Amino acid sequence: MSDPVAVVEDEVLGKVLGAMEERGLDVLVPMAPENLAYASGAAPPSQKTVRSRLAGAIIPVDGADTEVFTVKLEAPLVRSQSRLDRVTAYEEFAEHPIDVLVRSLRDRGLLDARIGVEAAYLPHTDFERLSTALPGADLYLADSLWESLRTIKTRSEIERIRQIGRAAQRITEECVRLVGPGSTERDLGNLITERYHQAGGDVLTMLVVASGERSAHLNGPPTDKVLQPGDVVRTDVIGTSGHYYSDVARTAVVGEPAAEQRKVYELLLDVHRRCLEAVRPGAISSDIYAIYHDAMAAAGLPAYHFVGHGLGVTLHEDPFIDPLRSVALEEGMVLCIEPLTSIDGQFGMQVEDEVLVTADGCELLTEAGDILRIGD
Amino acid sequence: MSDPVAVVEDEVLGKVLGAMEERGLDVLVPMAPENLAYASGAAPPSQKTVRSRLAGAIIPVDGADTEVFTVKLEAPLVRSQSRLDRVTAYEEFAEHPIDVLVRSLRDRGLLDARIGVEAAYLPHTDFERLSTALPGADLYLADSLWESLRTIKTRSEIERIRQIGRAAQRITEECVRLVGPGSTERDLGNLITERYHQAGGDVLTMLVVASGERSAHLNGPPTDKVLQPGDVVRTDVIGTSGHYYSDVARTAVVGEPAAEQRKVYELLLDVHRRCLEAVRPGAISSDIYAIYHDAMAAAGLPAYHFVGHGLGVTLHEDPFIDPLRSVALEEGMVLCIEPLTSIDGQFGMQVEDEVLVTADGCELLTEAGDILRIGD
Repeated sequence: MSDPVAVVEDEVLGKVLGAMEERGLDVLVPMAPENLAYASGAAPPSQKTVRSRLAGAIIPVDGADTEVFTVKLEAPLVRSQSRLDRVTAYEEFAEHPIDVLVRSLRDRGLLDARIGVEAAYLPHTDFERLSTALPGADLYLADSLWESLRTIKTRSEIERIRQIGRAAQRITEECVRLVGPGSTERDLGNLITERYHQAGGDVLTMLVVASGERSAHLNGPPTDKVLQPGDVVRTDVIGTSGHYYSDVARTAVVGEPAAEQRKVYELLLDVHRRCLEAVRPGAISSDIYAIYHDAMAAAGLPAYHFVGHGLGVTLHEDPFIDPLRSVALEEGMVLCIEPLTSIDGQFGMQVEDEVLVTADGCELLTEAGDILRIGD
Repeated sequence: MSDPVAVVEDEVLGKVLGAMEERGLDVLVPMAPENLAYASGAAPPSQKTVRSRLAGAIIPVDGADTEVFTVKLEAPLVRSQSRLDRVTAYEEFAEHPIDVLVRSLRDRGLLDARIGVEAAYLPHTDFERLSTALPGADLYLADSLWESLRTIKTRSEIERIRQIGRAAQRITEECVRLVGPGSTERDLGNLITERYHQAGGDVLTMLVVASGERSAHLNGPPTDKVLQPGDVVRTDVIGTSGHYYSDVARTAVVGEPAAEQRKVYELLLDVHRRCLEAVRPGAISSDIYAIYHDAMAAAGLPAYHFVGHGLGVTLHEDPFIDPLRSVALEEGMVLCIEPLTSIDGQFGMQVEDEVLVTADGCELLTEAGDILRIGD
């Protein structure tokens, strides 16, 4: 019980089997990378880079003889990652992964079973191939089952998210102190990248380093633009460690902040703290969004269409903290709360922390403070 | 005409429109990230990380009023990237991107048109939403149209691939000299990562640093494993710069290579050179594969199921150099030639170069030599 990986295994597989029973499923076949990783621990590296190399797991409702199927060349790695009972390898080009899946279902006597598949993930041609091969099956669209399961994190998931999230915060704070006017966005990006990997980060999926007017662009990667005195610099360290995401955004300014910059930042930080104070079990997501939206409207500043989202094996997952959905928060959710404002042609600012919903409120996994200073 | 980006634009869009005319298409809608980037220059960063943020382009066969649609938050960035006439932004959650696409087709009077879409990319639910909204349309499955178009590179594409490929080679050679016995795979990975970004690489999609027995695992990311004297270290620098991939694998050994290691490497390098000598217009892909396969069989070493593949805006694209397909090579193709062998429980070795098919043979974009040495 002291091995955190074993705890993840027990808790996650138990949750999966329980959800299957509730829905009367005979077998569940996660094929989206995040669901495969969540259910099995396996993440075939080229599943995301070579689209035809489909991979997945086969999880019968009795929890026996669970299986991962993956392209043969990555089978040794997948064997070392997977917590399920066995790994089936298919030969790329010679065998179609959907046929390999169907063969295993046939061997298990599950051709006519109630099978949970992901229609919002599987490409149309693959879905068609599967449904054509299983004319007697009851294909259950399990996309939302997975989303719902993943919303409440296990203890081990929380520790993994905490660890890489705190690293992302520390690295950002360290690296902005190592650059100055004349450095480029890429210099700052390279420093963050190097330290993120040193801290155990596997992939920096989407690193944002955007300065000056570029800070108003969302999701801008670092460029050769030189940091100028007076520039706002927005960073967002989005990457993964052991399948789990970090997503921590910070705002810095080069030199002395102008009065307007200081004012906007302090407004954002105040809104951020008020949103965080509202995070507790039973709080309604759209009410938290309203705190942000109303404050921005009162200040005449543009608001973003959400102010938070779940974080886990995907970057954005339920619950979204937006005006369209009124979801009651629950203990064990991990959220990013990230008020931002983008003034086109001027600057964009953002304060983003990761937070765990606890029994009676929330616990900050990261914690933003004053605006960061560059070259000062 | 001296601006390489402008050249890409003219050549690529012309090729796209020509292919549409040949197939009688009224409009083409690339939504796979690689086809959108190829056709428009636009790569919304979160298109790959947040699955619901679909993006695409609308390219009518007359080449007029071409359009990119993307999630609103990334529209400023996409505007700065796109070569097409306009960018349409949709509000996440409030509007479904498929509905935004359908609205534009309606405004253009193209609801009943012959429309090229990607069924091997679009998730089943999105494809169903599109086909339900377009009952009168003739949906043409354009996946192979794009693959075929992208096979022959324009001059500017070749320059982009050359630049980041040569950087990948140089960086590998430099970084193996900076580590030694006692360094970890991650130390080497961090060095490569930092320099890759300094060289203009945007994303290291899949960096392989695998030592000792791990070198026999395909696609193994760097771990905390310590490099030991006698370890084979296999690297593969897979990433992108301006949407175009590098894919350059090298084999190193820590200290003095053992006789068996030297023998296997020299065999691979010899096979590699013989494959490269065979690359010219008209050469048949399966014949080149046979050079590799037969040599490995004669030596009693395991062969991989392909020895090469096209490289461009995706990592693996046509033509594949494997036993199953007999494709005649053509001038302007860019290939990776990558003989490898993996002896489970011992080591894996690989030699991979990028090569351009020229009018009368080929030009090496990168060039492997003797086995690399670590700590020697």
